[in-house]
Amino acid sequence: MIPRYTPPAFAELWSDDTRYATWLEVELAAAEAMEEAQLIPAGTAATLRGLELKLDAAEIERIERTTRHDVIAFLTHVEALAGAPARWLHRGMTSSDVLDSSFALLLTRAAELLLTRADRLVDALAARARQHALTPMIGRSHGIHAEPTTFGVALAGHLAEIKRARAQLRQAQQLIAVGKIAGAVGTYAHLSPEVEASALARLGLRPETVSTQVVARDRHAAYFSALGLMAAAIERLATNVRHWQRTEVGEAEERFGQGQKGSSAMPHKRNPILTENLCGLSRVVRAAITPALENVALWHERDISHSSVERMLAPDATATLGFMLERAAGVVEGLVVYEERLRANLERSGGLYFSEGVMLALVEQGLARQRAYEMVQRNAMKAFHGEGSFRELLGADPELGALLPAHQLDAIFDLSHALRFAQTIVDRALAAD
Amino acid sequence: MIPRYTPPAFAELWSDDTRYATWLEVELAAAEAMEEAQLIPAGTAATLRGLELKLDAAEIERIERTTRHDVIAFLTHVEALAGAPARWLHRGMTSSDVLDSSFALLLTRAAELLLTRADRLVDALAARARQHALTPMIGRSHGIHAEPTTFGVALAGHLAEIKRARAQLRQAQQLIAVGKIAGAVGTYAHLSPEVEASALARLGLRPETVSTQVVARDRHAAYFSALGLMAAAIERLATNVRHWQRTEVGEAEERFGQGQKGSSAMPHKRNPILTENLCGLSRVVRAAITPALENVALWHERDISHSSVERMLAPDATATLGFMLERAAGVVEGLVVYEERLRANLERSGGLYFSEGVMLALVEQGLARQRAYEMVQRNAMKAFHGEGSFRELLGADPELGALLPAHQLDAIFDLSHALRFAQTIVDRALAAD
Amino acid sequence: MIPRYTPPAFAELWSDDTRYATWLEVELAAAEAMEEAQLIPAGTAATLRGLELKLDAAEIERIERTTRHDVIAFLTHVEALAGAPARWLHRGMTSSDVLDSSFALLLTRAAELLLTRADRLVDALAARARQHALTPMIGRSHGIHAEPTTFGVALAGHLAEIKRARAQLRQAQQLIAVGKIAGAVGTYAHLSPEVEASALARLGLRPETVSTQVVARDRHAAYFSALGLMAAAIERLATNVRHWQRTEVGEAEERFGQGQKGSSAMPHKRNPILTENLCGLSRVVRAAITPALENVALWHERDISHSSVERMLAPDATATLGFMLERAAGVVEGLVVYEERLRANLERSGGLYFSEGVMLALVEQGLARQRAYEMVQRNAMKAFHGEGSFRELLGADPELGALLPAHQLDAIFDLSHALRFAQTIVDRALAAD
Amino acid sequence: MIPRYTPPAFAELWSDDTRYATWLEVELAAAEAMEEAQLIPAGTAATLRGLELKLDAAEIERIERTTRHDVIAFLTHVEALAGAPARWLHRGMTSSDVLDSSFALLLTRAAELLLTRADRLVDALAARARQHALTPMIGRSHGIHAEPTTFGVALAGHLAEIKRARAQLRQAQQLIAVGKIAGAVGTYAHLSPEVEASALARLGLRPETVSTQVVARDRHAAYFSALGLMAAAIERLATNVRHWQRTEVGEAEERFGQGQKGSSAMPHKRNPILTENLCGLSRVVRAAITPALENVALWHERDISHSSVERMLAPDATATLGFMLERAAGVVEGLVVYEERLRANLERSGGLYFSEGVMLALVEQGLARQRAYEMVQRNAMKAFHGEGSFRELLGADPELGALLPAHQLDAIFDLSHALRFAQTIVDRALAAD
Repeated sequence: MIPRYTPPAFAELWSDDTRYATWLEVELAAAEAMEEAQLIPAGTAATLRGLELKLDAAEIERIERTTRHDVIAFLTHVEALAGAPARWLHRGMTSSDVLDSSFALLLTRAAELLLTRADRLVDALAARARQHALTPMIGRSHGIHAEPTTFGVALAGHLAEIKRARAQLRQAQQLIAVGKIAGAVGTYAHLSPEVEASALARLGLRPETVSTQVVARDRHAAYFSALGLMAAAIERLATNVRHWQRTEVGEAEERFGQGQKGSSAMPHKRNPILTENLCGLSRVVRAAITPALENVALWHERDISHSSVERMLAPDATATLGFMLERAAGVVEGLVVYEERLRANLERSGGLYFSEGVMLALVEQGLARQRAYEMVQRNAMKAFHGEGSFRELLGADPELGALLPAHQLDAIFDLSHALRFAQTIVDRALAAD
Repeated sequence: MIPRYTPPAFAELWSDDTRYATWLEVELAAAEAMEEAQLIPAGTAATLRGLELKLDAAEIERIERTTRHDVIAFLTHVEALAGAPARWLHRGMTSSDVLDSSFALLLTRAAELLLTRADRLVDALAARARQHALTPMIGRSHGIHAEPTTFGVALAGHLAEIKRARAQLRQAQQLIAVGKIAGAVGTYAHLSPEVEASALARLGLRPETVSTQVVARDRHAAYFSALGLMAAAIERLATNVRHWQRTEVGEAEERFGQGQKGSSAMPHKRNPILTENLCGLSRVVRAAITPALENVALWHERDISHSSVERMLAPDATATLGFMLERAAGVVEGLVVYEERLRANLERSGGLYFSEGVMLALVEQGLARQRAYEMVQRNAMKAFHGEGSFRELLGADPELGALLPAHQLDAIFDLSHALRFAQTIVDRALAAD
Repeated sequence: MIPRYTPPAFAELWSDDTRYATWLEVELAAAEAMEEAQLIPAGTAATLRGLELKLDAAEIERIERTTRHDVIAFLTHVEALAGAPARWLHRGMTSSDVLDSSFALLLTRAAELLLTRADRLVDALAARARQHALTPMIGRSHGIHAEPTTFGVALAGHLAEIKRARAQLRQAQQLIAVGKIAGAVGTYAHLSPEVEASALARLGLRPETVSTQVVARDRHAAYFSALGLMAAAIERLATNVRHWQRTEVGEAEERFGQGQKGSSAMPHKRNPILTENLCGLSRVVRAAITPALENVALWHERDISHSSVERMLAPDATATLGFMLERAAGVVEGLVVYEERLRANLERSGGLYFSEGVMLALVEQGLARQRAYEMVQRNAMKAFHGEGSFRELLGADPELGALLPAHQLDAIFDLSHALRFAQTIVDRALAAD
Repeated sequence: MIPRYTPPAFAELWSDDTRYATWLEVELAAAEAMEEAQLIPAGTAATLRGLELKLDAAEIERIERTTRHDVIAFLTHVEALAGAPARWLHRGMTSSDVLDSSFALLLTRAAELLLTRADRLVDALAARARQHALTPMIGRSHGIHAEPTTFGVALAGHLAEIKRARAQLRQAQQLIAVGKIAGAVGTYAHLSPEVEASALARLGLRPETVSTQVVARDRHAAYFSALGLMAAAIERLATNVRHWQRTEVGEAEERFGQGQKGSSAMPHKRNPILTENLCGLSRVVRAAITPALENVALWHERDISHSSVERMLAPDATATLGFMLERAAGVVEGLVVYEERLRANLERSGGLYFSEGVMLALVEQGLARQRAYEMVQRNAMKAFHGEGSFRELLGADPELGALLPAHQLDAIFDLSHALRFAQTIVDRALAAD
């Protein structure tokens, strides 16, 4: 989590202050549940809430340097601030009851921040896909011109993919919204399932089905996988923007800011640096998945090896993805689309992309596929080598002309027919969940 | 996919024969849909089905060496076998219409094979968890004795985790059950959404929301992530078996086969080689996730870089996970549990694990947490260094004795009280989805 | 290791037959060393060599199904074939003495196969870089035209990178050429360092500095890392070929085979499928690195979790990289370079790439950098928007004209001056190790 | 790079202040080289050095928010501070000339910091290995008791592995000590190889063989791989400490700090949290390798996707590894070794580990291996099931007694003989590079 790639909301979420405040949130919810169960004196939580404690993160860390234990340091600090009633906090609990329930809250909230940002990207893609639903564009496979599509269909593909990634993230959020208040090895030795359920319900969490000392880490691995999927979906979008912007293609480009300088050496350059940056960040976000999976196999009722991984990668991966979503939305909103270039590139192959239609028509006339293929290919190759336009070469081919009269060829070379389903496709993406 | 780690059902599923048969399945479903739409002559598919073609994988590969294109080679072979009616196959389709729809079928079926095997593992864990719900065991955090739990609770934790992984796999199966019959760049230039929907419905697939030349690869990445999650869940189980079996712990071990030899040098050794093997295979399965994510960002309407990755890793990852599930189920079914060792290990700490209960009781007597902590720790340290049993040392501590009379200490040192929720926890895992 | 991506030499190397033959090689070398040390009867190895045993892999595997131990199965088979003298084989050794020394031999030989193939790629790149050392080309950063370079310099960059990767692979080969004949936990309980040194020397291996039951796995992790580096170097080359070949760029392309078909739908397409394939395979090869690193932390004197990983990934990663090197060499050797397109693309920006030279000249005339930057940029922007050629616009700018007379501008717009070091750079790559 | 896992030297190295100071270092070295080549006025660098500029990182970032270009912001700031002579800086250079040469310096220095810390770990392991060279310990494979080794041999294995990782890191440091001062696409359009060589020599760097706009990223990937190898080597050490410390083994443990608290719930627990933490951090460090490999295939003469990855992961991976090395050294230095427990565990199997010796002796008496194996195993199994000590059971086995008289059995059951090479092995690790 470096400032450059950290939106403020994530800096706030993963700050020491928020962490300790969330711990207190968990302790107080647990206290309320224990009061209900008459395990601790009634009113404890209310009294402590009334004190509106101002936790001092630096002081907690100072204490931790001696105790080498973060939750004990936290509790010591709380007791120092709040006095006697704080003694009832944490009764029968283990540190992980606080840490894992708190971590679940933070990850759930991080997911919420991400979903909001994903919504903005979805909206941006939807608007631009709708706008360009019928803007013709050459489709490319292998980087080579294939058949026509529309710029809106291309964006709709990204829209559908981002929506799927958003749905995965929402599922991951559900899966991670699980805490535990179950004691040292998850057996409720000094607690009860009822106390846990009540405490967690106050926090909007569900109890872990079977906890050990900790909540099971497959939940976290699934969460990080969902982040990686969203990052990959953004990477595909970013990669395509980079292709569209390259000098020879020039079909679309990132909005160039006022005062922005492209290069210290070449003042005219307008580089797709935002989307290149997104491609790099995607590598960073998905790099968190493997460590998260390696965290699953904790020993016995837990070891603490997962903790350092999560300390580093949970803020990094969520904040970076948050930044990516904001940046991607900005790119899409501001994307400058050059319709003339789209048209010029489309026409550059002189209609070679209609070859499939010609081939099909020949087959319908009774030709064997291989025969039709060869007949089309010999004309396509001539056109490709600049010996004439594809349409004219076909018309002039006596063998082919005998099978397909001019008016039939004209019908095949009709762009609007080729794109007759473009709006349908875009609408399908708009309507998808 | 090496024979050693490939169950026969997966070898069959990923064989050349099955692949080509699935391609034909897709072509025929598409032909039926096109007949419906009157794009090709009625009866084409029925005629071809009637021929009961015996595809020859070796011949297809021979043709491919010339064409360097697998689907063209396949179609050439089909046409050679079936003659005229085969000309109507593949009309207006692109290779990926066949390949991706077929791949979706194979991955869906692979998931089904995996789910069946996951069910066996779930059943095995459920049976053993139920059996040992109340078998006491020392819980361990950091590899160090913590508080008591039961062997059934430990297994129930694995049961709940495997069930979650199974649910993720089921979702991934849904997500991947998507094909496309939409032509070169997904625009239905010579087809229609209706034809696609009808063709895919015959195959049990849904149409891709927006396809390019291919089905979007985020679906595949999610699928491989689900495989990785299951592998990680098995790894945790396997890791714990390895711990339980180690010489000094000896609480449970893999069933030792008749005639099996542990070591060429040490005939008495019984090594947890099955579960060690599972840990290694888990690394292999999850190694497929990153390539699958790297496959997402295909260029424009597709490049073919994903293909080689999938050719290698889809069989590998699914077959290996299938093998893992079978092996893991076998390990759990045959796990030899040594209840005496469980009891002996539990008792080895002389009840030190009741220290938390003592501390809580002291706090309830009004002591500050830190004070109680120190009072308990001084006796715990003596017990730990062998200066007496913890229970007796506590009884002999005058300061402590003044606060907690013997009968109260006895109540704290009651194992069945500590484990009173074990059955509840196991039942919760059994009832979970 | 699937047939499609496995060169025959690698299929042979990783066959069961070769594996068992290599085990025998190790056993016999060990026997010779033990004879020297008078641990076993003189002549044992010679007698066994004289028998020219034909090992039967299927039979070994049949035995293994009972013993569940591969080396015991192997030894049982050898004893069945060779009778009494075979009893002296493996004396005081542990299975891993055979397995790890044998694995070191196989990995060393695999590296040799890879190095030979890397040499071919190096030669191809060297030849083409030399050929095109002075073929002008527009250099591109961010996909946007930057300043001129040459096609030979571009290839020389790949040449230098492949050479570095080759050097890394050579180092990894050295690092892995390490075996052990040191017994169950590496202490030579029934052997000696001398016997080990002598046995391994016969195999061209060095002894592990400190072995446990196995050779340390950091060596293997380094080996797989070197494979990943070579794959990444090939990926960069392949990515650039793909860019060069794309329709709008068209500067170079993969040789199109006789009879090859680009697409079932678009007969005129010539797709960079070989290099796209290389990009995909690169993902596969580098996916072996993380599992190899996870293999390092074996428990105590070893666990066997590494074994399954290596069984699957060592053949896969080496064979696939072997295939990549062959394919990459073929692509470079056959690369069709379109010099006219190179020239046309270079000229398309009307000399905008000389802007840096103009700016420098202005600064040399005493202008502040920012001032010079703005003066150049205003003309660059006009040229970029098609309001005239950059050279002419500059000449017509009165403020600029006052500082830089025409002859000075002409000198700046001299391509051969800009490329005066191209040959030097290419020569540097040719001369590098 | 979070404070918790960042040693101060790394925080300093990767600070904004150091980064900008390093940029200035590069610019001044380049200026000196250009003065030599008479490209800029003599004395420029000296004048600028004389000013002892105090760069203001916050101000540079303020400027960057407008220019969206970090090096232009930096140069603008320098010019604002230094006035006219600063105009001569950066002449003919591209931003990456500064950034990449500077990054090479920082990575070289980071490697130096790491090597120093690796030396401390090497020293600690050497000292403890020497100390315990002859301290007997049971060797374990698969977590199961195997044959005796010594605690010193175990440490020597780690020592040799850390030394190898250190050597790899040193090589990576050499590989990364490469800069470029070669202009926009590496062709020296306004510079020369001589200027570059002179500038870089002043910085202790070598010129890139063939640069594009940037130094080739395979160098960085190799660097990160070396970090991952060291992390893996530490992970193996940490894993073994965790095993040694677990309750049932208890052979060694991390030094427990004054005031440290093991658990909020169980005051007597002494958890191996430092080494668990090292295992987690190892996952983080090696997670940087894949992104670094993905960074290699930059498009054409570069894209900037690598930059964000490096901004995040270079500080993270180096600082975290620095922390790991410090922590690992501390653990080894302070490791508390319980020789009695080592002895007790060794003796727990009643000499079963001598079974191999018995078997060998039987074979030497002329028995077939399988026969000997069975004879040993039947007694081993009895001993294993508590039916007597292995030595006594063997003595009482009439068939065996007929072949091996008591004095011969006694010689086999001699621990010092089994460990006769322990000192040699330790010495070999001490002497290794």
